[in-house]
Amino acid sequence: MGESNKLIFASGPLSGTSAPCASRMSVTTKSPLTCAIGIALSGGYFPVELKFAGYDVLIIEGKSEEPMYIWIKDDKVSIRKADKLWGMNTLDTQIVLKQELNEQAARIACIGPAGENLSKMAAIINERRAFGRKGVGAVMGSKNLKAIAIRGTNEFSVANPEAFKKARSVMLGAMKESPVLYSEFSKLGTPMVVEATSAMGMFPSENYRTTGEKSYVENLGVASSIERTSGNEHCYGCPVGCTQLKIARGSSKYVGAMSDPEYETYYSFGSQTGVQDHDSIIYADHLCDKYGLDTMSVGVTIGFAMELFENGLLTLEDTNGMELKFGNHQVMTDLITEIAFRREGIGQLLCDGTKVLAEKIDQGCEKYVMHVKGLEFPAYDPRGAKAHGLNFVTAYTGADHNRGYAPQEIFGAPIPKPYDRFTPEGKGWLTKWNQDVRCATADCPTMCGFLIDMALPHIAEENTAAMVSSVTGLSLTKEDVYKVRERVNNLAKTFNITAGFTRADDTFPERILTEPIKEGASKGHYVSQDELNMMLDDYYEARNWTKEGIPTLEKLTELGLEDVAQMLSKLGKL
Amino acid sequence: MGESNKLIFASGPLSGTSAPCASRMSVTTKSPLTCAIGIALSGGYFPVELKFAGYDVLIIEGKSEEPMYIWIKDDKVSIRKADKLWGMNTLDTQIVLKQELNEQAARIACIGPAGENLSKMAAIINERRAFGRKGVGAVMGSKNLKAIAIRGTNEFSVANPEAFKKARSVMLGAMKESPVLYSEFSKLGTPMVVEATSAMGMFPSENYRTTGEKSYVENLGVASSIERTSGNEHCYGCPVGCTQLKIARGSSKYVGAMSDPEYETYYSFGSQTGVQDHDSIIYADHLCDKYGLDTMSVGVTIGFAMELFENGLLTLEDTNGMELKFGNHQVMTDLITEIAFRREGIGQLLCDGTKVLAEKIDQGCEKYVMHVKGLEFPAYDPRGAKAHGLNFVTAYTGADHNRGYAPQEIFGAPIPKPYDRFTPEGKGWLTKWNQDVRCATADCPTMCGFLIDMALPHIAEENTAAMVSSVTGLSLTKEDVYKVRERVNNLAKTFNITAGFTRADDTFPERILTEPIKEGASKGHYVSQDELNMMLDDYYEARNWTKEGIPTLEKLTELGLEDVAQMLSKLGKL
Repeated sequence: MGESNKLIFASGPLSGTSAPCASRMSVTTKSPLTCAIGIALSGGYFPVELKFAGYDVLIIEGKSEEPMYIWIKDDKVSIRKADKLWGMNTLDTQIVLKQELNEQAARIACIGPAGENLSKMAAIINERRAFGRKGVGAVMGSKNLKAIAIRGTNEFSVANPEAFKKARSVMLGAMKESPVLYSEFSKLGTPMVVEATSAMGMFPSENYRTTGEKSYVENLGVASSIERTSGNEHCYGCPVGCTQLKIARGSSKYVGAMSDPEYETYYSFGSQTGVQDHDSIIYADHLCDKYGLDTMSVGVTIGFAMELFENGLLTLEDTNGMELKFGNHQVMTDLITEIAFRREGIGQLLCDGTKVLAEKIDQGCEKYVMHVKGLEFPAYDPRGAKAHGLNFVTAYTGADHNRGYAPQEIFGAPIPKPYDRFTPEGKGWLTKWNQDVRCATADCPTMCGFLIDMALPHIAEENTAAMVSSVTGLSLTKEDVYKVRERVNNLAKTFNITAGFTRADDTFPERILTEPIKEGASKGHYVSQDELNMMLDDYYEARNWTKEGIPTLEKLTELGLEDVAQMLSKLGKL
Repeated sequence: MGESNKLIFASGPLSGTSAPCASRMSVTTKSPLTCAIGIALSGGYFPVELKFAGYDVLIIEGKSEEPMYIWIKDDKVSIRKADKLWGMNTLDTQIVLKQELNEQAARIACIGPAGENLSKMAAIINERRAFGRKGVGAVMGSKNLKAIAIRGTNEFSVANPEAFKKARSVMLGAMKESPVLYSEFSKLGTPMVVEATSAMGMFPSENYRTTGEKSYVENLGVASSIERTSGNEHCYGCPVGCTQLKIARGSSKYVGAMSDPEYETYYSFGSQTGVQDHDSIIYADHLCDKYGLDTMSVGVTIGFAMELFENGLLTLEDTNGMELKFGNHQVMTDLITEIAFRREGIGQLLCDGTKVLAEKIDQGCEKYVMHVKGLEFPAYDPRGAKAHGLNFVTAYTGADHNRGYAPQEIFGAPIPKPYDRFTPEGKGWLTKWNQDVRCATADCPTMCGFLIDMALPHIAEENTAAMVSSVTGLSLTKEDVYKVRERVNNLAKTFNITAGFTRADDTFPERILTEPIKEGASKGHYVSQDELNMMLDDYYEARNWTKEGIPTLEKLTELGLEDVAQMLSKLGKL
């Protein structure tokens, strides 16, 4: 969170066009949570508004002495005092700022109390959507930047309208042919995954000491979700609309709370904390949006703290008298406020995530802490899906489900081919493949990752090449796309090497390496150290990196990254 | 809440022009709370949006079979299904509906859960502002109407621009000369009144059994307010901006809650319930906005229930085990949710206000219940300000501070002259005068009432005549304005007579008539039955009504209300 850190909001070449589902944006910074490169993605309408204002990328540098916000109206950019907004939650901030600017159509990204209080789990919120992970909100807070408001009224044209129309039509056709995109995903969204991973015994529960009990499916699964769903929402230009708005109803103490929890949230505030009260998860998700917190890291940290408490490593004295027991939804929701406001005692202990908490507790934590490089685990037990797990280990952002999701293991996806989820064989190559595809065909063109997995896996690179070429006027081939995806992964890896990361950091927490899953369809499985070593060797080899995981001069030269090679050379790494 | 009831949203002749502070709107209906005519006022931006869409008045009749909303975009009006919105709080409803309509600039008035659940204290919310009182939200709910969204893009001109410019300039000049409008009111808003009424011993506390202890000033007064204020907000075209946004900060359990409590809210959720925790009042105000509830009626009902509980008329069995003790802010805030969702037990008991609660309890309630005609008391103890009190008794809407506020008693206002607040003499005439002025110069031209009291009392009618004439092309004189104000009061009174109201309904609750104030600057004062009779006689006489409070043929004819006279005649009342 140093003053010299940059905070980069980047839309992509397709943003703002009528390309379906190209409404994403990345925020990139050096993550205070991992100290590695940090990328957080979000959709909605804020990303395209930047484009309509005439910009591709917004780079925030330096630091303000006092709270400010940025107001971009087309070519007019001003930096203004945010005294009025400081202390406000993200929903209030957006409402009040639009009123202040007399510009209801402005789109706003902002931090809440968590970002102001520099929680390393702080998110940046636009509407109810989050640039969620890696503490990007803390970086914004450290710059004393409360909000960025944008109103763009420019129109822009694509370079080759005929080619664009054709490519778009191919893409829409592939989307129609998807067996799940419209028929299931638009009606259920990501929460539908609860049932799949539970059935596979890899829906992690109680901080990974158990997995996917049947009662989670009953209480948090599809039927229970549908009961609470009031409707769905779409990002800009998306015909799918996977966001499911859910309202806590009936006799719940959380009655009236509304939010749109994703699959990952049902894990982090559900199974991970042992909570089966569906409405409390809607409320917890709402609190995180409001305070500007990453639901995933916060839930995993709370689950971790609960296991520490149950094992006597946190005491009532540490917890301000709160009983941090698994399944206690009152405590789970209360802790979110403690964290967001970095409150004395338990709030201060938990507010910077699992890695910092483990360091504070020191003795005896190793076997309970669930992160890679400081980034808390997503909702897939790596012991039940080894390429998925290898991605957590090797992704340049830490344990990140957005870098190299492995549908071949989890859903038996046929491209490039289905994989047995327990075997380590071939997973080095597959992980590289998944990371590269997602990077080049989703992240870089700011296309929604779900679309790639569910509708375009067979034409992902061709589609990207055709769409981006028609919009930009470049003449990209499938092979160019391959190259782009590798360039990003090599560049990011080099960033991390310069930040001090080594092969030793590409590893699982102790529990994954030593404790077999106790029950269910993945019972008995774990990832041995030998398996991990083998998969890592394979992965580095597939990338043409050294045994230490350092990009080779050959690979960097092939990718046209000679300047990156020079950086490594100066460090004595090449 | 019958199907035949109408719900009338009316802007005024000045709405949408650049007349300062003319951004108000009334919602009129037969009140389910009082069964009399009910008027609720609000400001903000929704009122003028109706005008920009090309309408003065919106009348809702009948009832939908299923939840719907109305969408008005200029001359296009549609009624659409609101399944997605039903169950949502008012803040979420506004956000989600704008997104659904793809019209961020739409202005929305909507009900929350309280209106859906037909609470007789339900409000209609636009932005964070309320058409608060008289259960107008329940009428909207009974029609299955969740929301009205408006986007108006028309411009309209004034009839006589030169005259308008001149009248406006006179008005702005008078505003500048006000000793309080900009110097105090724009910085502090209505909460500044806490100190004034406390000093006068008429800031009612603990359901009127005590008044204005010093500690309320310490904990809820100006200094404490300023600590929590983040900034102010303006209604359309208002240069004052009295709305004070407040955030609960520090170690409060309500930390982060934001709202804009008015003076009346510091009474209803503060002194009336014995609560001195400032932050809990901000939170309670926020809950009421969110759920769509009238803060005044809800707080008074909770205070009433607390006194019933302390006197054994409500038991732990009735209250779902909650300790309804004065000063318990946890209970105070919890009860708001119980009320909004009409929850079994205490929620069902309280959700329709004091009158219904008293009827349910039956025995022994008379001396504790604080309403006139079913409308809960505002924040001025009538025992310390008798014209103010006589207005509660005679206003056609019940105990309403917006009909005939008496600044001559409370602030020694010099127009027409300052009055001793304890004497009953002359109060009949004064009450009529105040009711008429407020009606003709604030309500009818939709001008902010604060403005009339603080800046224009010496030119109120001239100002109204000049402004309205220049905008409409009519040639109104001061005398015409006098007539309008009397017409409204006679018409509304007649409505109530047809609804069965008689002189017997124009009375105070028992406590005001029998219990002298126990301490402070109004100690020993009460309103005896004889005083009330005398003031009522004077008031009816000033209005040229009969001893029974029925408009005379002479008066109605003078006002050109022959048709109204015929109605009374048919009822045998004339």
